[in-house]
Amino acid sequence: MENELLLPGERLDDLQRKGYMIIQNPDRFCFGMDAVLLSDFAKVMPKEKMIDLGTGNGIIPILVESRSKGQKYVGLEIQPESADMARRSVIYNNLQDRIFIETGDIKDATNIFGASSFDIVTSNPPYMTENHGLTNEADAKAIARHELLCNLEDVIRQTSCLLRQKGRCYYVHRPHRLVDIMSLMRKYKIEPKRIRLVYPYIDKEPNMVLIEGMKGGKPNLIVEKPLIVYDAPGVYNPEIYDIYGYDEETKARLMGDR
Amino acid sequence: MENELLLPGERLDDLQRKGYMIIQNPDRFCFGMDAVLLSDFAKVMPKEKMIDLGTGNGIIPILVESRSKGQKYVGLEIQPESADMARRSVIYNNLQDRIFIETGDIKDATNIFGASSFDIVTSNPPYMTENHGLTNEADAKAIARHELLCNLEDVIRQTSCLLRQKGRCYYVHRPHRLVDIMSLMRKYKIEPKRIRLVYPYIDKEPNMVLIEGMKGGKPNLIVEKPLIVYDAPGVYNPEIYDIYGYDEETKARLMGDR
Repeated sequence: MENELLLPGERLDDLQRKGYMIIQNPDRFCFGMDAVLLSDFAKVMPKEKMIDLGTGNGIIPILVESRSKGQKYVGLEIQPESADMARRSVIYNNLQDRIFIETGDIKDATNIFGASSFDIVTSNPPYMTENHGLTNEADAKAIARHELLCNLEDVIRQTSCLLRQKGRCYYVHRPHRLVDIMSLMRKYKIEPKRIRLVYPYIDKEPNMVLIEGMKGGKPNLIVEKPLIVYDAPGVYNPEIYDIYGYDEETKARLMGDR
Repeated sequence: MENELLLPGERLDDLQRKGYMIIQNPDRFCFGMDAVLLSDFAKVMPKEKMIDLGTGNGIIPILVESRSKGQKYVGLEIQPESADMARRSVIYNNLQDRIFIETGDIKDATNIFGASSFDIVTSNPPYMTENHGLTNEADAKAIARHELLCNLEDVIRQTSCLLRQKGRCYYVHRPHRLVDIMSLMRKYKIEPKRIRLVYPYIDKEPNMVLIEGMKGGKPNLIVEKPLIVYDAPGVYNPEIYDIYGYDEETKARLMGDR
């Protein structure tokens, strides 16, 4: 089966969840901890429909599906090669009846899927605002990382249109954009309801923020306990092992080094 | 000197800073950790002029003065008894040439002092939005804690009018209002530049947030490393002892219990 679904340069990685695997190409983009943390932070209830905006190789719908009982998970991706890779991962894991990958622009999402058509929106949008002349090298990685093809306001505007009233969205982004994110969410009638800051070490500035919003929700923000990634260099905090889904044996072995 | 300056029910507490003392009345309001953390978080440069909105017994201007070389520190307080207590603490510490306590309403601050008249604004505003019928018992504590006489928008609107361009403000508030605070700051042209979350324990939700804003500043938020208050029940994190200003001997003794 690997031979049929893998293209040259691609590899197959174990997601440590229900035996799921993901196809990745290190020359294009490999998923990072941000996608794993977002997939854990997002809560999808039974029968709900979710869309992931800018899904890349489909890591977020695949991980969220592994933890929830939603009806349908859609991944929207503008780069045809990434969308194709995501579709092949869906086939590899035999998830074609629940996960659907569409090729398209986030800015057209409401035109493609219709207004108020989802219960849940997730996104791990491009982080970087400045392109520093990167337009000449607008390769797969640059498109995924920089706001070249869409910006934060595009993502939030489309989220608001796609969500039903009281539907929820989940983002992961950089803390230095937190004011922009919260302001834009309110501008588009999505109330920030829950955030969690991810600190690499207990004595360092956070490098990620996880955010839950509710369309038409009432103001009241819960700031969750800190998520500390490393207890010491190379030693993850136990919560990180849990989120990654290591089984007890692997965890005990990895934690034994402490 | 105590006899002259203390009224019945009042006590004199040592601030552990340059020998400064503060007059408090436990029946009215005693300062808490929020005021101490805000005084440490606020940065006043030499020659700058600062105003503290809702200064209570004057704890914030007195603590900030002890750590900085500003030209002038004003405390504005609506409750005459609290303002009087603050004035007597200023006299006790012989700070009448630098700290000035005015009796008045935050909502009138720009009328009293003039627009663009300060480099720095600080405030530890009332936290609670709901008054739960408290209007019948609008005593000193209720006025200090609940938004009875002014609300968050009043504080931020007045801050913006009082600050010069590029002047800074420093607030301490509750994390559940963070979206409101950031949205109102932007509404009144104050850009949030720095926040720090205060977590009682490393595995608990934060119960305070410290915020720095700059009038007319450019968007870019720094989220600082977490401030953890307790390492164990009754055992402060060393940073808390530093902020409180305990000398090395006291700190060593208190930390020795670990």
